[in-house]
Amino acid sequence: MLVVSSWLIIYKVNKVRDSQKNNQYIWLDGTGELSDVVISSRVRLARNLSNYKFVRCLGYEKLKEIASKVLGVIKDNDFFNDYHRIDLSSVGEIEREVLREDHLISYEFSKNYENRLVIISNDNCVSIMINEEDHIRLQCLSSGLQLDDAWNRANELDTVLDNELDYAFSPELGFLTACPTNTGTGMRASVMLHLPGLVLSGDINNVLNSLSPHSLAIRGYYGEGTDFIGDLYQISNGITLGRKEEDFIETIDRVTKQLVQYERDAREKIFAKNRNSVEDKIYRAYGVLLNNRSIDSVEAVKLINFIRLGVYYNLFKGVGYPEVNTLFVRTQPAHLQKIEGKLLSPQERDVARSKYIREWLNSLN
Amino acid sequence: MLVVSSWLIIYKVNKVRDSQKNNQYIWLDGTGELSDVVISSRVRLARNLSNYKFVRCLGYEKLKEIASKVLGVIKDNDFFNDYHRIDLSSVGEIEREVLREDHLISYEFSKNYENRLVIISNDNCVSIMINEEDHIRLQCLSSGLQLDDAWNRANELDTVLDNELDYAFSPELGFLTACPTNTGTGMRASVMLHLPGLVLSGDINNVLNSLSPHSLAIRGYYGEGTDFIGDLYQISNGITLGRKEEDFIETIDRVTKQLVQYERDAREKIFAKNRNSVEDKIYRAYGVLLNNRSIDSVEAVKLINFIRLGVYYNLFKGVGYPEVNTLFVRTQPAHLQKIEGKLLSPQERDVARSKYIREWLNSLN
Repeated sequence: MLVVSSWLIIYKVNKVRDSQKNNQYIWLDGTGELSDVVISSRVRLARNLSNYKFVRCLGYEKLKEIASKVLGVIKDNDFFNDYHRIDLSSVGEIEREVLREDHLISYEFSKNYENRLVIISNDNCVSIMINEEDHIRLQCLSSGLQLDDAWNRANELDTVLDNELDYAFSPELGFLTACPTNTGTGMRASVMLHLPGLVLSGDINNVLNSLSPHSLAIRGYYGEGTDFIGDLYQISNGITLGRKEEDFIETIDRVTKQLVQYERDAREKIFAKNRNSVEDKIYRAYGVLLNNRSIDSVEAVKLINFIRLGVYYNLFKGVGYPEVNTLFVRTQPAHLQKIEGKLLSPQERDVARSKYIREWLNSLN
Repeated sequence: MLVVSSWLIIYKVNKVRDSQKNNQYIWLDGTGELSDVVISSRVRLARNLSNYKFVRCLGYEKLKEIASKVLGVIKDNDFFNDYHRIDLSSVGEIEREVLREDHLISYEFSKNYENRLVIISNDNCVSIMINEEDHIRLQCLSSGLQLDDAWNRANELDTVLDNELDYAFSPELGFLTACPTNTGTGMRASVMLHLPGLVLSGDINNVLNSLSPHSLAIRGYYGEGTDFIGDLYQISNGITLGRKEEDFIETIDRVTKQLVQYERDAREKIFAKNRNSVEDKIYRAYGVLLNNRSIDSVEAVKLINFIRLGVYYNLFKGVGYPEVNTLFVRTQPAHLQKIEGKLLSPQERDVARSKYIREWLNSLN
């Protein structure tokens, strides 16, 4: 097990709720361009050190060596003054799940946490996973459509690490990665889109099909292979090889702007055509969220989806995109258990979720 | 067409809403025994005049004669001072439908209204249909479990008419009626029960099956052959022949008291066992009723059902059985059109229903 005693574990269960400092989800704050449709932007880079096999082929000693190398750079560099280390094997299951729900670590990383650690910026926008599938996975999150911002931050961070570490890089292939699908730039850029207008208008499938020439990957909120619960769609580059990072980002940026226009048109169209029916859906969702006594996470996301659409139509006083965006994250199982300070059964979570959402909605009025 | 100009048509569309006098539904006011479960009691008598064929075999002149005979009795008797006549062919479709939704006339009567009229007491508890299937159909409604009250009132009224009219009566068969299933007493006694506890506990079918030895008929809120929407069950005597009226009534009274006990036990059991789940259903119903912008009559009844159960558990301030009972009636299509003062499409009704229920619920807070 990695032991680096000079690092404090400061991202604690009881801090996230109480401390505003550890509780800012800058990437959910509704700033950034087109945030009525674009919840967040993300750029992730996969890097490996040369002279080491990939993570899945290494044992404890080598993984520790890699972690020490990366930590050595971070520890000695003022660039990382506002970063914290979390040794995954030193925190409980709830905390690991919270990090995953916050999109700061991957599912795989949260489940196989031995010899793994993550470095996180104070604003929860940057995370560096060490010994995930690749030796280093760094990602930057931004609110709204700010792919350039996320890319610049990721690139800057990558340069700082690159100056001190010896990356596995091939002049022909680019950055070498454990999975060939990441080789090349090692970059995945993505945006999380909220598309209830296109879903309600029935145009969503046509619109998504029209994206196929761009080789984009489309996923749900909970990642690959899941349904598009809450009308949330993650769009990312499907390939990483053969083009510059800026080209991939430019494509996603351009496609996103087009999707935003389609979505806004759909929202206006359905409101003009069936205003009462749209309002009915939104207010019913509000009524259920404000009154239920037990709600599972899937239903919650489906209903919060309509509240977010209601924000677009100015139906709710005191509710804005930052509040609703945050609600998508806070109503997930681990966050609820963190709030309650204990492990909860699924039934208990549904009750806790109900209580959290009701108090939250009431606090906004 | 019947013309009796000395009678005023005072049961007008625009009066029911404005006039408290014409707007009292005594039989829905939540008084009477066991009104947490028993919404209302009803006794109906079928009578025919001797020397006339049954209604379906008669033309205009004979039907007019019969109406004149019955009206003659009513007009000259102080017993009917607080009664009003409504000539069905002189009022509009909405008004006829309102009378049907108020359980004051039958569906058949509301649709084939030529040569038909109805006499109604000021408190909307007694109605006398003339030229329905039988020459005379008189019924008395009471709130809660008050079959004796309904029977006494019906019997008294019947005696008044019997003193002046020559009823078709056979010493062997009893009162003769157009349909043989009514021959004998010509009486149908019924209670409208609200049984959400037995539905939620899953015991409803067993309980209803246990009633089969009593030869009772079980119907939904909207009459024969309909589902039990809103967990409302109408129990009545399945046969009318071979026993005294009081015997039939005593059976229904006894069975009803047993059902009330079962229902109360079920309500206590589910609340003790799954309080949060029961409250969840009730508060969700409340949330949807308070916030939706369009609701059809079936969904409305289903949700009002839960509000009524919530009244039992004391979950709502300012809402009692009279309010909820009345809501079951007022949210029906004709009542809504009467309130709006015009014919509405189904979509417009759903919107009007939504508005009515929201205003009603808000007025109670």
